[in-house]
Amino acid sequence: MSEQNQFVETLRWRDGRLEMIDQRVLPARFEYLAYTSAAQTAEGIRSMVVRGAPAIGCAAAYGVALDALRLRNASPADFVAEMDKAFDVLAASRPTAVNLFWALKRMRTVWDAVKEQSVGAIAERLLAEAHEVTAEDIRINRAMGAFGAELLSDGACVLTHCNAGSLATAGHGTALGVFRSAVEAGKKISVIADETRPFLQGARLTAWEMVQEKIPVTLITDNMAGFMMSKGEIDAVVVGTDRVAANGDVANKIGTYMVAVLARRHNIPFYVACPLSTIDMGIASGMDIPIEERSADEVKGFLDTLWAAEGVKIRNPAFDVTPAELVTGLITEKGVILQPNREKLVSLFSGNQLDDTILEPRGLS
Amino acid sequence: MSEQNQFVETLRWRDGRLEMIDQRVLPARFEYLAYTSAAQTAEGIRSMVVRGAPAIGCAAAYGVALDALRLRNASPADFVAEMDKAFDVLAASRPTAVNLFWALKRMRTVWDAVKEQSVGAIAERLLAEAHEVTAEDIRINRAMGAFGAELLSDGACVLTHCNAGSLATAGHGTALGVFRSAVEAGKKISVIADETRPFLQGARLTAWEMVQEKIPVTLITDNMAGFMMSKGEIDAVVVGTDRVAANGDVANKIGTYMVAVLARRHNIPFYVACPLSTIDMGIASGMDIPIEERSADEVKGFLDTLWAAEGVKIRNPAFDVTPAELVTGLITEKGVILQPNREKLVSLFSGNQLDDTILEPRGLS
Repeated sequence: MSEQNQFVETLRWRDGRLEMIDQRVLPARFEYLAYTSAAQTAEGIRSMVVRGAPAIGCAAAYGVALDALRLRNASPADFVAEMDKAFDVLAASRPTAVNLFWALKRMRTVWDAVKEQSVGAIAERLLAEAHEVTAEDIRINRAMGAFGAELLSDGACVLTHCNAGSLATAGHGTALGVFRSAVEAGKKISVIADETRPFLQGARLTAWEMVQEKIPVTLITDNMAGFMMSKGEIDAVVVGTDRVAANGDVANKIGTYMVAVLARRHNIPFYVACPLSTIDMGIASGMDIPIEERSADEVKGFLDTLWAAEGVKIRNPAFDVTPAELVTGLITEKGVILQPNREKLVSLFSGNQLDDTILEPRGLS
Repeated sequence: MSEQNQFVETLRWRDGRLEMIDQRVLPARFEYLAYTSAAQTAEGIRSMVVRGAPAIGCAAAYGVALDALRLRNASPADFVAEMDKAFDVLAASRPTAVNLFWALKRMRTVWDAVKEQSVGAIAERLLAEAHEVTAEDIRINRAMGAFGAELLSDGACVLTHCNAGSLATAGHGTALGVFRSAVEAGKKISVIADETRPFLQGARLTAWEMVQEKIPVTLITDNMAGFMMSKGEIDAVVVGTDRVAANGDVANKIGTYMVAVLARRHNIPFYVACPLSTIDMGIASGMDIPIEERSADEVKGFLDTLWAAEGVKIRNPAFDVTPAELVTGLITEKGVILQPNREKLVSLFSGNQLDDTILEPRGLS
């Protein structure tokens, strides 16, 4: 088994199809669903068969490849028309995670570069790029994990919200990748997982991943994080993100902002594991990040079990925004950006060194 | 129908038995369970058939009366021995809500005052006192409601956590009593209800009570409160409490502390509806209030639906403590104690006037 395959494969390419673990039914059932078109893949993203910003990016890349392969015998004109639709349906699947748009832009750029070739050759090139997006995601997560692991003390108890694990990525994970890398480096850490209503990614996915790997994990409801902090039981917070604005504001799963506010009150460091593909320099501030509002049914209960009083109105924002001032550091594959702000992010994307602000400065090469 | 009976009867005395709404299955099923002994009543409190600090106090008073009536033909010696057991089993049912101990102490005092009388007469006196505890709770809630209603502006959107409603009391409610009184006073208010994991008192009970009375109510998961505040959608917070320490620290349902921290960050007033029976001058600070840890199963899912990954450890503290410095005011039946602290509470219980700190000063007469 290769190093890349030591974790669960959230997405995999089998027999010309995209297979994705159905994350709606984990951990009760572990099963893959197969996808053969962009439209099917978009529906898988929308309905949260697959979720997590990096995994959504990989799924979207494969969604593009699926339609390209499906159209490999089409005329060039039909191919262009149908592929434009494929990009559109994928782009409309979920609004907040920027990796979706990043991956689609990358696939579009690859297509542009080979657009003079045959339809069949273009399709093969797009599939190769989807494979590369996925393999690269794992390499990036390992790089982030190495930087992040240095931030955690031996014996630390770390809280995380939602699931930024193997299941949210192509593998290893962003926030949970930091925990895995810390354990690989010989550190004893323990994890507190917020259950993360309404979709319960913490209770179902993060807890499951940690149990699988025998990393000690304790599950709490979302409203217990303050209690645990007030008792001195949490040493650090590490979460993932769906989009970081150019000023360092962080959009992530609903409830992240509350954890950040509490961490500040208790002087607990609050880190965000954030591949550079999640930073959107085209969005000035977190206030401008589109926040998805999902179906009322998710809040009324869980799957088929509904408990809310009939007739009650529901709000269901899926994400919130944590202002940069509450972020101790962004853990990227190039190093850790402490106290992120616009100046540092602009400098990072300009390839400059940031010796005093990045733990392990490398710039973007 | 008398004014006292316009709301649902959480507890009622019927045919020599205590009947309590089974709050575990609301709103899917509305049904009363009948209790004929102190031990049964204690189990009803422990298993949360009845919950909410004032309602627990009323149930405990009736629990004492039930055993007294059951023993009305016993010898005086047997009566004393068995009644001591009744007090003990009730006192052991739940640890945090002080109203339980307050009610038991009150019943003990009444018994002491008539202990020279016949066993039958003592039993009748204890039942009369249980009725009085219950009737008094409703009067107190109405008085708190009147004071609290003055704090809410017309058109205000008020967040509450857990259920401090009719279902948490003998009727009218503490926090929800404030909302009811505001509506009775002609104010248009709307309510945001946190769902309140793990027992979902907000989704099941608060939402249900508000829908019944056509007070506009919106349900959110606990981790959405920060988002709503950051969007300017919440004007005030009103919650109940299970015990207030002598320094003004407030123990209430887990998650209350997080709401209070967020309210402070957003300069939103945070009020606690608090009958004087909930203030425990024998506890110096919130740190000393015993916090109940309940069964892991509650966090693993809801009732028979379990979703947590197998093998995960669980924490389930049922309450947390909000330090007095985060409390804008305690709404009591004697007036509102702004910025509560030890000095003000000591003065209040000494019967002094507190003109500059109590909205409608009356002292304790």
